[in-house]
Amino acid sequence: MRATYIHGAGDIRIETVPDPVLIDPTDAIVRIVRACICGSDLHPYHSKPAGNPRAIGHEFIGIVEDTGSAVHTVKRGDFVIAPFVWSDGTCEFCREGLFTSCLHGGDWGDENVGGGQGEATRVPFADGTLVPVPGITEDSPLLPSLLTLSDVYGTGYHAAVTAGVRPGETVAVIGDGAVGLLAVLAAKQLGAERIILMGRHQARTDLGREFGATDVVSERGEEGIAKVRELSGGHGAHRVLEAVGFMPAYEQALGVVRPGGAISRVGVPQYAEAPAGRVLFSPNVTLTGGVAPVRKYIGTLLPAVLDGTVNPGRVFDKTVSIEDVPAGYVAMDERTALKVLIAP
Amino acid sequence: MRATYIHGAGDIRIETVPDPVLIDPTDAIVRIVRACICGSDLHPYHSKPAGNPRAIGHEFIGIVEDTGSAVHTVKRGDFVIAPFVWSDGTCEFCREGLFTSCLHGGDWGDENVGGGQGEATRVPFADGTLVPVPGITEDSPLLPSLLTLSDVYGTGYHAAVTAGVRPGETVAVIGDGAVGLLAVLAAKQLGAERIILMGRHQARTDLGREFGATDVVSERGEEGIAKVRELSGGHGAHRVLEAVGFMPAYEQALGVVRPGGAISRVGVPQYAEAPAGRVLFSPNVTLTGGVAPVRKYIGTLLPAVLDGTVNPGRVFDKTVSIEDVPAGYVAMDERTALKVLIAP
Repeated sequence: MRATYIHGAGDIRIETVPDPVLIDPTDAIVRIVRACICGSDLHPYHSKPAGNPRAIGHEFIGIVEDTGSAVHTVKRGDFVIAPFVWSDGTCEFCREGLFTSCLHGGDWGDENVGGGQGEATRVPFADGTLVPVPGITEDSPLLPSLLTLSDVYGTGYHAAVTAGVRPGETVAVIGDGAVGLLAVLAAKQLGAERIILMGRHQARTDLGREFGATDVVSERGEEGIAKVRELSGGHGAHRVLEAVGFMPAYEQALGVVRPGGAISRVGVPQYAEAPAGRVLFSPNVTLTGGVAPVRKYIGTLLPAVLDGTVNPGRVFDKTVSIEDVPAGYVAMDERTALKVLIAP
Repeated sequence: MRATYIHGAGDIRIETVPDPVLIDPTDAIVRIVRACICGSDLHPYHSKPAGNPRAIGHEFIGIVEDTGSAVHTVKRGDFVIAPFVWSDGTCEFCREGLFTSCLHGGDWGDENVGGGQGEATRVPFADGTLVPVPGITEDSPLLPSLLTLSDVYGTGYHAAVTAGVRPGETVAVIGDGAVGLLAVLAAKQLGAERIILMGRHQARTDLGREFGATDVVSERGEEGIAKVRELSGGHGAHRVLEAVGFMPAYEQALGVVRPGGAISRVGVPQYAEAPAGRVLFSPNVTLTGGVAPVRKYIGTLLPAVLDGTVNPGRVFDKTVSIEDVPAGYVAMDERTALKVLIAP
């Protein structure tokens, strides 16, 4: 089969590799119907040292091709959503819904586990990882939206939930990437009254408005902070959803959060130390969020996707075949595409 | 009247100053019945530059001596508890209970406002600041416990509430000062099943056990972290209440918190930058807490104090007259006293 490997910074290759096989009785083999490229894939794309090529991609939906003898919740032919990490489903963290802290879980692309940007993959702990969706076929128009449940939509929702968004509140969303836009949608679903999207790519912020943003602030730094505070009654937003991960975004969050409010981060922090003393303490600001345990949210978010109430798949603005995945990385990196769908 | 002033590091003086007078119609004058010295008073005691003497003390209970024409909720002769900041009671933050972010509030010892460690003080915004307690007289045996509601008990409770302590959980409390010990009591009241107190002054940790600590860990650093993790099933405590404020205490908190858990800080951070990137993000740890809006909690905590169910006043292990307040600072600083009560 064909699969995507990263060999080093800027070096994405499509290779022919052996078809995946069952190793453990808890495994499944999934043929991948749709996958995509994540903003977080750009981090290794920018910085991976050369050597030790690794299968890449962690968002996919597909059809179960085979299962081990100990798999009970999915069977051959089932349509499934794969969260962006695999998890045993039985450890104390999985039982609490914190699948990202699974004691026996791991990442797509780990040894003997395929990446998401290929034609098929071995799935460890199929019962604890995959979420079957009955009635979906490979030609469903819902595929793009279902695919967002493997990462970006669940991640945006995690930001809104952990920040504690409540009806009537003002929410600021930092970042107009796919996660930021879906954090807007999530905040809207949780009843936020005013949703201020900070971003400056108009095509993206226009989509953000369709998802529920009431205001767009394109300014950055002090000017952007002043604008958000002005829009939120002078004291800032109750909840700030930070969907970037770089220090300026965190500093922006500190600037726009209201005393007693919360900053939820779902962009992977690209820093180790940060302002976190009295700047949080004096105004009683809570810092929350983290790696989203998206599997927990699939059941909650699925009904509105299935009945068409929401259409999170609109974040995809470019589709490539597997052979064109390297071009998809270029498009994401150069920001000519918001998010790239892969139809292997 | 006599009142306590700080002139510089280590320089606490008792001085004769004019009696306080009403300035605004929303003021009250309160005669102070009991006050105390706070761990946080030791920060200026260690580091205040010489010059610009300032009235000190921010925890007191007393009797209303006089009120301005616009004061409606307290009257002459009322017994009152004063929270450690004054607040208007009417701004948008006060209405939400975040009295520490009052738009027009301030600190005891500010210009034209007395400190708590004196015989009397002017109280701005008496309606928004003071909490009257009917039926209490100056010889009540409950005075020490009522005094803890002005700061330390409410601060410990804030740690437990903001951390989200729930019945059955494991809580680690870092610090065996008065706030840490009362955070233990608060965690117990909120139903924590296992409460691990990290501290190494046995007289204090013994009191912590009486307040509800099920375990005491006297080790620090990696050794202390290993011990707490061992006591909490290997993965750490659901809630960590950090009642110190120095970096080693924060690092300890990071080491003992369970994935998906929360660290609540109520010790004023003595640092600006801190590890706050993936160390929080990857395990989905929430960082919360802050300056406690204790006025919000007085109504909740008062009944169990009045009926004797709890006795938070046990944190006081030394009593001084006003003339001996400087000796009280020495005792707190040298840790020969846990917390010093002042009977002016």
